[in-house]
Amino acid sequence: MRERYFEDFTVGQTFHGGSTAPLTAEQIKAFAGQFDPQPFHLDEEAAKHSIFKGLAASGWHTAALTMRLFVESDVQPVGGYLGVGGEELRWPRPTRPGDSLRVEIRVLETRASRSRPELGIVKVQITTFNQNDEVVQIAKPVMMVPRRPA
Amino acid sequence: MRERYFEDFTVGQTFHGGSTAPLTAEQIKAFAGQFDPQPFHLDEEAAKHSIFKGLAASGWHTAALTMRLFVESDVQPVGGYLGVGGEELRWPRPTRPGDSLRVEIRVLETRASRSRPELGIVKVQITTFNQNDEVVQIAKPVMMVPRRPA
Repeated sequence: MRERYFEDFTVGQTFHGGSTAPLTAEQIKAFAGQFDPQPFHLDEEAAKHSIFKGLAASGWHTAALTMRLFVESDVQPVGGYLGVGGEELRWPRPTRPGDSLRVEIRVLETRASRSRPELGIVKVQITTFNQNDEVVQIAKPVMMVPRRPA
Repeated sequence: MRERYFEDFTVGQTFHGGSTAPLTAEQIKAFAGQFDPQPFHLDEEAAKHSIFKGLAASGWHTAALTMRLFVESDVQPVGGYLGVGGEELRWPRPTRPGDSLRVEIRVLETRASRSRPELGIVKVQITTFNQNDEVVQIAKPVMMVPRRPA
């Protein structure tokens, strides 16, 4: 796949990627056991009686799966996906066992870097959907992308 | 540990937590292999020649480790850490092999929920430091916390 320099990104441009295999309850619990050990991410019975009304993946698990889909998408910046952070991260609904996630990516903003003339800044929105086209995450990461050599 | 209702949180309040064991190169590569498969997170040699000048953890790995420290901190909201997202997430520098992370938490804002009278909204800043007191992440998650029953 062709790699993109800063100059190849324009506001409004959209990109897509593949989708994850259906997430299993075991994967949800394994991630939570390591990084977000709360009953509603670890145990079906406890989760039934929680605000989630059933086992729910950690939001950070959804975020990590989204990163995988982003890296494997057709965005392909030269030098890789160098995120410096983001301005928004929201989980409108949880990811559940059996969910298969996919992403849509849209360029929100492009600008030169003030401090590093060899780099540009590209801000995108990544919307993560489940298999029912319900939004499980909205993220607005900011990436550094090399400028095309003169 | 005592659990806190919405009414127990006030702007400016600070909380602390424990720290992680030193992160190993193997853990960095295992997380990246699953969620952020890029050469500078997967391979020491490739990382040396990248913008990171050495193996660097995925920002999402830092975020996931931060969540673990947050869950185990003395914040302890009633009903758990129910994040609806956040307004900022930044990685000023990468987490490296050997780093041991810790968090400081400060309450930025508290307000009633308009749509759900039984809940309040608590916005915090979580600053994640490495063992040299350098900041590796700043996050501003927004949590829903039950109000104390009348």
